[in-house]
Amino acid sequence: MREVAIIGIGQTRVDENWNQSIREIALDAIRATLIDSGRETADGLFVGNMMSGILDMQNNLSALVADFAGLKNIESVKIDAACGSGGAALRSGLMAVASGEMESALVVGVEKMTDLHPHEVTAALATAADADFEAEMGITFVGLNALIMRRYMHEYGWKHADFAPFAVNAHANALHNPNARLHQKITVEDFEKSTMIATPINLLDASPIGDGAAALYIVPAETVRGGTRILIAGSASATDTLAIHDRVDALFLGAAYRSAQEAYKQAGVGPGEIDVFELHDAFTIMSALSLEASGFAQRGQSIRLGLEGDILPTGRVPITTRGGLKARGHPVGATGVYQVVEVVQQLRGECGKTQVPDARIGMAQNIGGSGATIITHILKREG
Amino acid sequence: MREVAIIGIGQTRVDENWNQSIREIALDAIRATLIDSGRETADGLFVGNMMSGILDMQNNLSALVADFAGLKNIESVKIDAACGSGGAALRSGLMAVASGEMESALVVGVEKMTDLHPHEVTAALATAADADFEAEMGITFVGLNALIMRRYMHEYGWKHADFAPFAVNAHANALHNPNARLHQKITVEDFEKSTMIATPINLLDASPIGDGAAALYIVPAETVRGGTRILIAGSASATDTLAIHDRVDALFLGAAYRSAQEAYKQAGVGPGEIDVFELHDAFTIMSALSLEASGFAQRGQSIRLGLEGDILPTGRVPITTRGGLKARGHPVGATGVYQVVEVVQQLRGECGKTQVPDARIGMAQNIGGSGATIITHILKREG
Repeated sequence: MREVAIIGIGQTRVDENWNQSIREIALDAIRATLIDSGRETADGLFVGNMMSGILDMQNNLSALVADFAGLKNIESVKIDAACGSGGAALRSGLMAVASGEMESALVVGVEKMTDLHPHEVTAALATAADADFEAEMGITFVGLNALIMRRYMHEYGWKHADFAPFAVNAHANALHNPNARLHQKITVEDFEKSTMIATPINLLDASPIGDGAAALYIVPAETVRGGTRILIAGSASATDTLAIHDRVDALFLGAAYRSAQEAYKQAGVGPGEIDVFELHDAFTIMSALSLEASGFAQRGQSIRLGLEGDILPTGRVPITTRGGLKARGHPVGATGVYQVVEVVQQLRGECGKTQVPDARIGMAQNIGGSGATIITHILKREG
Repeated sequence: MREVAIIGIGQTRVDENWNQSIREIALDAIRATLIDSGRETADGLFVGNMMSGILDMQNNLSALVADFAGLKNIESVKIDAACGSGGAALRSGLMAVASGEMESALVVGVEKMTDLHPHEVTAALATAADADFEAEMGITFVGLNALIMRRYMHEYGWKHADFAPFAVNAHANALHNPNARLHQKITVEDFEKSTMIATPINLLDASPIGDGAAALYIVPAETVRGGTRILIAGSASATDTLAIHDRVDALFLGAAYRSAQEAYKQAGVGPGEIDVFELHDAFTIMSALSLEASGFAQRGQSIRLGLEGDILPTGRVPITTRGGLKARGHPVGATGVYQVVEVVQQLRGECGKTQVPDARIGMAQNIGGSGATIITHILKREG
């Protein structure tokens, strides 16, 4: 396998883009990425998307995006791993370039979610759960996460307010990210007073959906000469049971553990060497579980990282430095690509007030379903 | 890139499987394939599927199938390229194994289409067309193909009955395939008398949908020692405009031409050396266009191959030897894998009355949308 480098990034602001169709949103991210890369086309296009079939009545999305973006005759494919689609698309592109099958690939994550009524979007999101044994019973994704969070609080003795730092930090960081959906500072008091959705999860525990696209341009590392290179040093994906009730332990993200361990091994590093970690904070409880399964805290103890300021950009384990899913927003199939784009921004030193000082090694972890598919990437800056 | 071999195949009968959910259908094909391969699990699972999100309210399908099949902790991903999903899934699995990222992969195509009312399935299939500029106008897939067929008849002077051999041959071959949906001999008279759907396409021009799954097990060729080996000698995918009206020439499948040329180059063969060709006969007109774009006939002249008996198992260009989409059935996301499974059966000499004598090189071509994404694979028997 050849080593692979990221030479271009692009993204749209996560928003309610009622004036743009899904193809146009994807195009904006692709254009920005081609400009950033100094390229005009690529050998392959890998599209991460979960719900275009349901929400846009558009399957065959990768051919459409290739066509509309003027990428004539390009090989293209769409990858679905629910909210993990973006990370999975990067892995597919990576294998195509690493194998020698392609000399370049564009990876774009895109989702358009705000045209329909929220109850339709909630039903569409529930397709990431087990249709016959979870969704059929009427449970939503918030509901599933609420069950996990309640159990976590019971097992480890934390109260709801203890989760506040995850949301407060994400909102504070998003203030400095022009592409974030929410530019709204919040306090611990705001967090505690927020509208209940599915007890114990309230509005400020949960990430907002949105329309958005992010993209990456990857090439064999050997073709990038001189200056700074951003290498994909680790890439791994693992699965767990789809349904929560099938897990022996619903408080441990086994797929996060396995994919992170494999990515650490490939990159030759451990959690102590990760300068910035863009994790999948769809709900505050997911931040806690990701940190623990990825080796940043003992089980039940990741809450302390928030309470003690370790998760701030200046802390020991900076997370959600551009706002995370919580405040940058969560256009589900695009999220995994946004995370990697943001890690690249950190490694390039482009993050202004939320820049992690001298970030050289960054990690992104993308979750599909309630931990069913988890993809971990580790990037390294060289030079 | 390492060479890759297929060491196992499996399939379910294409049918109306009202007593099985999509996960169960996929499992049946996977089990058969594991038994055929003599393996118990694999490093990766690549699922080709188009419509589980719409028809089964189930996204995240690859994690579900991995889970239900007992493939614990396996990396898995779902690939969507509309009716080309199966071929695209094989290409993704191939890159994973060829790159050295995995030592083995299961590729499964699966679709469950018969639980809903046909008008819902027709609407779901239309998501493979351009949602904003084709489907939005109310046109169906049959309608799009009817426009192409009418134009072809006008340009080249063929009459409807001239297309009959494509359907008659497919139905005749399916009689000897226990996994085919339709076991019904038809004549040219039946073809001409059949119910009109969208003029000039009638019921016997069109392939039936169905529920079904097919699977393949692939490994690095170097690990297969002794005896017969089935190698993937060529694999390529190309795209064209999604909408028919955006094409300069709607009667030429540019993506078929490009993917076939690339696959020929990789395999070091030309159309004259292909012993069996499983093409994508969703409609009889698609057989004609595939044969022409892939180099088996001049433009407008592939009809002669049918009229002169060249497409029979004993002919010069045997096609749809197991019934094709027309009579084996077309569970859309699974079709591309069925095609490759059937080529393997031919190369193994397992096809009984429709066996192509001493078949050593076979080709499968899978089409997503009306020619938007086309994937061509060439297999070679060694030993």
